[in-house]
Amino acid sequence: MYIPTYQDMLDAHERIKPYINRTPIRTSKFLNELTGAELFFKCENFQEAGAFKVRGASNAVFGLSDAQAKLGVATHSSGNHASCLSYAAMLRGIPCNVVMPSTAPQAKKDTVRRYGGVITECEPSTSAREETFAKVQAASGGDFVHPYNDPRVIAGQGTCAKEFMEQVDGLDIAMAPIGGGGMISGTCLTLSHLAPEVQIIAAEPEQADDAMRSFKAGYIIADDAPKTIADGLLVPLKERTWHFVSNHVTDILTASEEEIIAAMKLTWKHLRIVMEPSSAVPLATILKNKERFAGKRVGIIITGGNVDLDKPPWTLN
Amino acid sequence: MYIPTYQDMLDAHERIKPYINRTPIRTSKFLNELTGAELFFKCENFQEAGAFKVRGASNAVFGLSDAQAKLGVATHSSGNHASCLSYAAMLRGIPCNVVMPSTAPQAKKDTVRRYGGVITECEPSTSAREETFAKVQAASGGDFVHPYNDPRVIAGQGTCAKEFMEQVDGLDIAMAPIGGGGMISGTCLTLSHLAPEVQIIAAEPEQADDAMRSFKAGYIIADDAPKTIADGLLVPLKERTWHFVSNHVTDILTASEEEIIAAMKLTWKHLRIVMEPSSAVPLATILKNKERFAGKRVGIIITGGNVDLDKPPWTLN
Repeated sequence: MYIPTYQDMLDAHERIKPYINRTPIRTSKFLNELTGAELFFKCENFQEAGAFKVRGASNAVFGLSDAQAKLGVATHSSGNHASCLSYAAMLRGIPCNVVMPSTAPQAKKDTVRRYGGVITECEPSTSAREETFAKVQAASGGDFVHPYNDPRVIAGQGTCAKEFMEQVDGLDIAMAPIGGGGMISGTCLTLSHLAPEVQIIAAEPEQADDAMRSFKAGYIIADDAPKTIADGLLVPLKERTWHFVSNHVTDILTASEEEIIAAMKLTWKHLRIVMEPSSAVPLATILKNKERFAGKRVGIIITGGNVDLDKPPWTLN
Repeated sequence: MYIPTYQDMLDAHERIKPYINRTPIRTSKFLNELTGAELFFKCENFQEAGAFKVRGASNAVFGLSDAQAKLGVATHSSGNHASCLSYAAMLRGIPCNVVMPSTAPQAKKDTVRRYGGVITECEPSTSAREETFAKVQAASGGDFVHPYNDPRVIAGQGTCAKEFMEQVDGLDIAMAPIGGGGMISGTCLTLSHLAPEVQIIAAEPEQADDAMRSFKAGYIIADDAPKTIADGLLVPLKERTWHFVSNHVTDILTASEEEIIAAMKLTWKHLRIVMEPSSAVPLATILKNKERFAGKRVGIIITGGNVDLDKPPWTLN
């Protein structure tokens, strides 16, 4: 099993720079006062395709040889990896096939199609997703770019933490939501070399807390079809992301659906950014564990901003 | 009548730097393709109090002598100037009295109160607002900081265009919405010295088009109580802003309520920022006048982001 290295991350950053935005940092005095911490939000929702996943996806796409690239790429994804891989493939002018759960938000399906990705839908479970994908990939022959358990993808995601450290001095804690663990793994890859003193804390929905249970058990526990509003965090850890999580993560904290929605609305209101529920999980866990974060400088990766604007979750019911 | 100078704007920028954010520029390939222009959005909704008006307000507040400051400041405003003046007054630790129309969005009233501003409500017309204000100011003795017809305020708003020119090269056109004309006047003040080749185009709701009619007539036309979703643009030009509009503005374009709402949703979706209806008027006018903007580099000031998140306008009806 190849584990990506710090040099892979540096190479990735050079490779993808023309295709990504160096996203800005947002702060809010109001949220600092509310939490008692000093919060820095890195706005990966400001990537063109709306999520950090353009980093790993474009690292994979632009690292292909011309011969490999001709057959295109293929993946399965709850949404943002699919959008971002389609976007990177469009930039290189190669085909992209994606398998998405039928329950993925319309906004994410629309984004994939806008970038020329071809969608095959499946039932919303990990098993159905992998089964459908095997058929789709066999038919297309495209290079499989796994949404997170791929060294090229993890190295690409690690470029976000590199920029973060260049943009903000003296972080005590770095946070990101955890689903499959791609962003957390990239963060571990980068910070374990660049700033090993920074604690890495992952945040997960209570209703999809398999990474937290894995972390506590010491081995991967995978749920097949968890249900949470944080639709980017439905997938389980795999061996490469488990390597990083088990070696470098300080802790995994969880939040309820209600806490996630409240944190999402707070962020829209006070940072004035549009972000998806998954991105609100870190702030939700900070708000319920204030003593742990008091006085700390905390960097939070806002992972994505693809959300159905017709139905902000606090307007439902 | 004192007209603020370019040096006043430079002095303002030095004075207010500790109290404002140097707001980032957002771009979107999607919106560029949709419009045929190259668009640069300066995110003044990312000011702590949610609007560019913190620039003019903090220039006024921090320019007061200690003796003047003791009595505090007072103003009337449809919302954002009230919030921003309250915020600046809180930073200096002085009282702030504001008269607001009863119809101002709850989000804006909440923001004023959060910053310690004391609100007196009035009927939603310019005449009622000025009448109520006269009483409030007589009672408090605070320094009147007019929301736009004040040289300190216009000089402060002009700092936004200065930053914009430092952040983006070769703009052909600068755009902002126009209500009372404070931001447009500040933009004229700065660009007429710094980059007189840049066209300045203001954007206004059809349903509150008194600035456009004034511009065409050659004298100020003031409507008493126009109705538009763009709640920041209800007020008429005054003599100082008319000076800048009549001397330096290239054109004033208008958009319907439906066009404003559509442009607002497009911006939330593709720039992934939360901004208020007033801020969507420039993009709405670009979308209906594409030939005029084709191939141009257009800088657009996103003026504010204080909006009731429970009721995005496209979810109503």
